[in-house]
Amino acid sequence: MPERGHYAGETPAIQDTYPEDVAHCYGCGRLNDVGHRIKTRSVGDGTVTEFTPEPYHTAIPGYAYGGLVASIIDCHSTGSAAIFQMQHGGKTVGSEPSPRFVTAHLEVDYLLPTPLADFHLVGRLVEIKGRKVVVETELSVDGTVTATGSAVLVEIPEHLFDPKA
Amino acid sequence: MPERGHYAGETPAIQDTYPEDVAHCYGCGRLNDVGHRIKTRSVGDGTVTEFTPEPYHTAIPGYAYGGLVASIIDCHSTGSAAIFQMQHGGKTVGSEPSPRFVTAHLEVDYLLPTPLADFHLVGRLVEIKGRKVVVETELSVDGTVTATGSAVLVEIPEHLFDPKA
Repeated sequence: MPERGHYAGETPAIQDTYPEDVAHCYGCGRLNDVGHRIKTRSVGDGTVTEFTPEPYHTAIPGYAYGGLVASIIDCHSTGSAAIFQMQHGGKTVGSEPSPRFVTAHLEVDYLLPTPLADFHLVGRLVEIKGRKVVVETELSVDGTVTATGSAVLVEIPEHLFDPKA
Repeated sequence: MPERGHYAGETPAIQDTYPEDVAHCYGCGRLNDVGHRIKTRSVGDGTVTEFTPEPYHTAIPGYAYGGLVASIIDCHSTGSAAIFQMQHGGKTVGSEPSPRFVTAHLEVDYLLPTPLADFHLVGRLVEIKGRKVVVETELSVDGTVTATGSAVLVEIPEHLFDPKA
């Protein structure tokens, strides 16, 4: 399925530069056949993910279920952390395999019910300290922010990429 | 598919008592054909949800992706809030249609990578104040707590059940 969205194809998505052995995540792995396969890009001084939910991702009729909102904010945050970490090191996304982050702490505020329609997520760097990155996210639909997120992400040491190690 | 788990069939699951027009949630709706269809029960002075992830719910190999952990904690929290609210009102789960809660705020601490194996979630009531319920959750796999959650849930006014209202 070709990627949809305003920014599709404009700049490399960070998930397309994840090393192959850590590219199977249900949320963001390009190699997970049934997952969300979100794409996060550097746009301006922030990050952007666009995501189209499926009709079955419903909560109460017409709205997205809260777990999806949390999942997409979480996935967007790990991708954003990788982008911000690379940029902090003076590297361009796509110039080499991306670092890979996992979430240590996630907070989501559900401000309004999120319509079951195209999600637009914008990430902002709050802090980088060694392997730890803090990212804030706004999720909007049709220009209205319906949820915000704050996440603490930690870069996975490379030896943990290989489960046999 | 018959429900799996240690508590299956023991006491009514709160999700089986949701009014039909709010029983399609991807996370917890018994009428969502492709969703998680979690089941939350009153056990002791807390609540229990058991959930078996699918092989494709992977993060890094062997572990569940963070969005699933957040989703199941979120779903378990809304179910737990309904159980605690009923009990607070002196009602037994199954005696009448359940109240229905949505999440206002969700926090998840990822303490350890969560193995892609049976999840066991235990919920505890922190506070009830009118339509607002605060629930804390521990998610464990094989007896080891891998993630904890805290959620603020709000009871949906009945007129919002019907999207035509």
